[in-house]
Amino acid sequence: MTGTENDLVLRRVLDAPRAAIWRCWTEPDLLKQWFCPKPWTVSDVRMELWPGGEFMTVMNGPNGERFENTGVFLEVLAGERLIFTDAFEPGWRPVGKPFMAACVTLSDIDGGGTQYDARAMHWTAEAKAEHEAMGFHTGWGIAADQLEALARTL
Amino acid sequence: MTGTENDLVLRRVLDAPRAAIWRCWTEPDLLKQWFCPKPWTVSDVRMELWPGGEFMTVMNGPNGERFENTGVFLEVLAGERLIFTDAFEPGWRPVGKPFMAACVTLSDIDGGGTQYDARAMHWTAEAKAEHEAMGFHTGWGIAADQLEALARTL
Repeated sequence: MTGTENDLVLRRVLDAPRAAIWRCWTEPDLLKQWFCPKPWTVSDVRMELWPGGEFMTVMNGPNGERFENTGVFLEVLAGERLIFTDAFEPGWRPVGKPFMAACVTLSDIDGGGTQYDARAMHWTAEAKAEHEAMGFHTGWGIAADQLEALARTL
Repeated sequence: MTGTENDLVLRRVLDAPRAAIWRCWTEPDLLKQWFCPKPWTVSDVRMELWPGGEFMTVMNGPNGERFENTGVFLEVLAGERLIFTDAFEPGWRPVGKPFMAACVTLSDIDGGGTQYDARAMHWTAEAKAEHEAMGFHTGWGIAADQLEALARTL
């Protein structure tokens, strides 16, 4: 087994029920509302929630930027764990330059709230450094705030 | 979707029942008997036949060479399709330098025999060229001969 030296991790306690957080991650209309740090927005989402199913998002920036992210889900354990990667497209076709697999883990906390662990696992130290420089901690942190706020309204 | 320009394909009609060929691919004691062109041998196999399950083989050469190949299965459709890759280890941890995903597809042929399609799908043109230079067609072809001979005895 390799170690976790190429991982970036965001670990938070979110003040919202686990089921609501899972819905925000897996329902496209909800995902659109929190997945990008504002003022960026998500205009399109496609999710097929099974191993090898498509996970596609289109992110739009305030100056007309447009990024399409394609990938597949690797594991979907309802309410508990979601893993996806950019390394494949549907049909398990290798695509692009594999950057990371991301693993989101949810668990209940005694007394309420949800332990939220979001882990980006990279193939190389360079990819990890690039992701960190792109603002992983700030970006995923703001998104987690938005996720928590939305989940509390459900 | 990307195209198939980085794929290498071996397509054969094997004179053996599809169920027997599936067994040769998925039972470790059978896999050991055909998976390497002789005089190379396979000394160890671990197979967990589900998405994300381990697929590990150790290949041994006549001059003491030893290669351990690790990876995971991506899709297991009993009797029909098997897809695996070296890009992950169990737990969906990114590992090494992703080289390929391989897809083996079996189908019945009218009148008997099995259509055997083995496709190696690479992330880059360089990986495809490297695989071809390593002797993909010869190696996978000899292995397919050995597979057919073994399957006919079952």
